[in-house]
Amino acid sequence: MENAPPNLAADYLPHLAYDCVIFGFSGERLKILILEYHNTGWFALPGGFVGRQESLDDAVKRGLLERTGLDNLHLEQFHTFGSMQRFSPEAMRSILEASGFAPENYPQLLDRFVSVAYYSLLNYHHVSPTPDALADSLQWYPLEELPPLLFDHNEMVSRALAALRNNLDTFLAGVNMLPAQFTIGELQSMHEAILGEPVNRASFQRRMLQSGILQRHEKRYSGGAHKAPYLYSFAAKKDGPQ
Amino acid sequence: MENAPPNLAADYLPHLAYDCVIFGFSGERLKILILEYHNTGWFALPGGFVGRQESLDDAVKRGLLERTGLDNLHLEQFHTFGSMQRFSPEAMRSILEASGFAPENYPQLLDRFVSVAYYSLLNYHHVSPTPDALADSLQWYPLEELPPLLFDHNEMVSRALAALRNNLDTFLAGVNMLPAQFTIGELQSMHEAILGEPVNRASFQRRMLQSGILQRHEKRYSGGAHKAPYLYSFAAKKDGPQ
Repeated sequence: MENAPPNLAADYLPHLAYDCVIFGFSGERLKILILEYHNTGWFALPGGFVGRQESLDDAVKRGLLERTGLDNLHLEQFHTFGSMQRFSPEAMRSILEASGFAPENYPQLLDRFVSVAYYSLLNYHHVSPTPDALADSLQWYPLEELPPLLFDHNEMVSRALAALRNNLDTFLAGVNMLPAQFTIGELQSMHEAILGEPVNRASFQRRMLQSGILQRHEKRYSGGAHKAPYLYSFAAKKDGPQ
Repeated sequence: MENAPPNLAADYLPHLAYDCVIFGFSGERLKILILEYHNTGWFALPGGFVGRQESLDDAVKRGLLERTGLDNLHLEQFHTFGSMQRFSPEAMRSILEASGFAPENYPQLLDRFVSVAYYSLLNYHHVSPTPDALADSLQWYPLEELPPLLFDHNEMVSRALAALRNNLDTFLAGVNMLPAQFTIGELQSMHEAILGEPVNRASFQRRMLQSGILQRHEKRYSGGAHKAPYLYSFAAKKDGPQ
């Protein structure tokens, strides 16, 4: 948003926000997309509000595009945060002031928000996130080197990571993180990197092959074909939440 | 609520609701707690609103107690529903009118709601749900015999069931559905009944024993002790979301 909307209260549902934990991965470390608000020292997850005439899912896609330039993400909703502790009008006041807005013109923003949180996963070498006018920077931070985040955003990251790990088998089938065809070993490496721990090869292979999410392809003839591992792709997409 | 609150708009967050899918099970069929609104033919999940000064989780516990008489449930949040299709002021108008309230006095209720949905599981022989003043009845319906429900409540039930099944291993450890000590066979039967399909005995046993959620107890001497199966209990409670 280049400027705050002219009539925030008329355009958006009050008290309802969303936040996004965007995981980035490129075969090395798991990172998270964090924005820094102008002149405040506040780091936060990209988030925003829900228009009165748009669905929650549409609001998240639209808002994320506006705030980060990212589009066509596979977003998974994982939890809605509604504690009283997250009510923190001072932080919002300082963010508005630091960007030249008068807080008293935006009383709705200083009120309590319940936030619906989503996560996604992408290859951070494939995208160039762009900060919006409210943010100084939009950067990938390694999971272990996150700055303290606004509100309960650190807790959101923890829960998003748990949800991603718990849902990894099916989630990876819906995102474009591996080549079109891959070996079980390549799939296992990706699981291990995101889980942050080694996986038993035999039971991983058995579970994957029994899961029905993989489709096996013919080995290509290569002279030493008897040694080449089978190649797989993800089978027809499951009907996910989104 | 015996009467609608005197100042709904002042007491509750606008546009935000919750709904609860309460699964009941007693070793036979999986059932769901459904209420019927007075003289409307509307069946719905028990739900309500979030007070401006209470957390989302507290609102759900309080509201569920008010609407059903049920207390101390292990509630698990599973999804927030925010489509535009769920906006249906006519249904809310008819519910208010049928209970003797003038809809024009409750404009907030006729507006759009985003609803945070929770599920729980209990033994329906252990509880006696009591309907509140707005509802005619509060009944257990077998999963396969649900009436058409208000708004998107049928979709909520489907997603709640998927979430319960997906989370069954850990969820059963947090609810009081089995005797204090039980055999792997008893645990397997409960899983099969809730999953709605048979489970492979060997892999179920291996998975449960490796999961760390079970604690094994000494066999009690009974003459034929070598034939008696081991008894288990759930190990120390995991820190769940709530």
